[in-house]
Amino acid sequence: MNIDLIEAAAQRLAGHVRRTPLLSSPFLDDIAGRRVLVKPECLQHTGSFKFRGGWSALSALPDDQRANGVIAFSSGNHAQGVAYAAKLHGVPAVIIMPSDAPKLKIDNTRALGAEVVLYDRAGEDRDALGARLAAERGLTLVKPFDDPQVIAGQGTAGLEIAEQAAELGVTHADVMVCCGGGGLTSGIALALEARAPDLRARPAEPQGFDDVKRSLATGTIQRNPALSGSICDAIITPQPGDMTFPIMNRLCGPGIAVTEDECLHAMALAFLRLKIVLEPGGAVGLASALFHGDEIEGDTVIAVASGGNVDPDMFQTALSRFL
Amino acid sequence: MNIDLIEAAAQRLAGHVRRTPLLSSPFLDDIAGRRVLVKPECLQHTGSFKFRGGWSALSALPDDQRANGVIAFSSGNHAQGVAYAAKLHGVPAVIIMPSDAPKLKIDNTRALGAEVVLYDRAGEDRDALGARLAAERGLTLVKPFDDPQVIAGQGTAGLEIAEQAAELGVTHADVMVCCGGGGLTSGIALALEARAPDLRARPAEPQGFDDVKRSLATGTIQRNPALSGSICDAIITPQPGDMTFPIMNRLCGPGIAVTEDECLHAMALAFLRLKIVLEPGGAVGLASALFHGDEIEGDTVIAVASGGNVDPDMFQTALSRFL
Repeated sequence: MNIDLIEAAAQRLAGHVRRTPLLSSPFLDDIAGRRVLVKPECLQHTGSFKFRGGWSALSALPDDQRANGVIAFSSGNHAQGVAYAAKLHGVPAVIIMPSDAPKLKIDNTRALGAEVVLYDRAGEDRDALGARLAAERGLTLVKPFDDPQVIAGQGTAGLEIAEQAAELGVTHADVMVCCGGGGLTSGIALALEARAPDLRARPAEPQGFDDVKRSLATGTIQRNPALSGSICDAIITPQPGDMTFPIMNRLCGPGIAVTEDECLHAMALAFLRLKIVLEPGGAVGLASALFHGDEIEGDTVIAVASGGNVDPDMFQTALSRFL
Repeated sequence: MNIDLIEAAAQRLAGHVRRTPLLSSPFLDDIAGRRVLVKPECLQHTGSFKFRGGWSALSALPDDQRANGVIAFSSGNHAQGVAYAAKLHGVPAVIIMPSDAPKLKIDNTRALGAEVVLYDRAGEDRDALGARLAAERGLTLVKPFDDPQVIAGQGTAGLEIAEQAAELGVTHADVMVCCGGGGLTSGIALALEARAPDLRARPAEPQGFDDVKRSLATGTIQRNPALSGSICDAIITPQPGDMTFPIMNRLCGPGIAVTEDECLHAMALAFLRLKIVLEPGGAVGLASALFHGDEIEGDTVIAVASGGNVDPDMFQTALSRFL
């Protein structure tokens, strides 16, 4: 796993993945007490950075293997990213989703061209189901984070951050990244190491689900005590990946854990000041930049806003409570 | 008024004005029955395209004249665009706002460094007040649309559209532009004439306030019967400008008028599918692209989403009613 893989992914992604801008607002600067730059990956195709990794993985496959199709497990953003990347490549995608996943996400994934296979969380073995389908049809599994080409795809966001920060004269800053399994965080960390070594990736997580923060603090992989119960559903994973953790452990600064209220508040401020839509899990990085300034170094902070696939009710809750 | 002025404005704006991306969603394509590309000027500094014209006008002034400061009349987006452009130039700005303007907009304009002078719509003569202040302090008036440098600044969005559409292989399309006085529409029309002659600017307006549509249809300037009473407050003007109308009359396709419900519906879809925040007046172009397809030509339509400075209550109304 190195910068060459990320550069190669960037070549494959060119013209297919959106180059998201860096946004800012003097009002957010005032709140944070330093300059705040926001990388809105909610504006990426399918509403999250996951399309980068999906496209990278699909485009890296040999033609004949890709033609057989791909398979992924996901109830959310990875599902849509892989489904749309497969559709644009003209190959089949099977997405295994829990039957109690939000109807909108199931409908979206289907509408993006994927065959959705539902399973019962309680009674069925997801992995066995996936393995059987993959074997029967010759499908290639696209993992959500612990895969070199997926990490490389997410890392292209880091290449863009390095370039865009340099254009603004920013060479020293903490880069707060919403972190689940660590694919985006480790990809960005690798890109920054090579292209902007004084920008430092730092994982941001919800309190109670700060496995990466604790893993970095101890130097060994730690698990979350719970696997559900957060509004930040997009970034809740049991533990950092076997592939992503060593990268984060080598390159990242300390993690920051934020409250759910801080996420909702950051969503409301992103609405008001940046005119972008964030989901709770996609607002964790911005929340850390705005409300945990005492844990951040430097006169500029960069926050990756990783996704915007939020239900209207949750969004309205954020606006009602914090505006 | 010609392309050279717009190109010169683009030079002055480079590095100061945000290059907004072109967004898209297959879900919006399905609704419109053609490819839909959205230029989200809500992501521009201060939440609307008005910062382009503000910066263009400020940066075109001789140094000594600019140093004295500028003055503008506005209750909304022009106020914030001029105020922030003046702040970044380090010169004073006086914004004359009605005393019954939304408190948030008054506060924002002040927070962006402007001196806000409130007047009573009923009892005071706004123009006389402005003229007195301008004379006393040597302030330069920045008009909202009928000014060559303002039109040139707004036209830089058209230069970007021409480039970005070409990158996507789009050379023929209607470009739907939210239209008030016509500064953005005429600026974009001039840029497209020079850089993408088969992209055609077309004004979009709210029903009942379709002065530009009627003016284009008759070839002479028509007035709106009312000056208030629309949720699309950002683009309600009495009539097209003396400078903007001849440009639009020469270059633009027919206007399209949309209902308020269509605006709210477009806002909801922009939230759901593009993850951007639009105000009603900023959603008029997208509403025309999505819901008035029978009035549009070609297999691609481009919609300029001109602004996102919307109150949370109005935004929640859009989500509640249409999602």
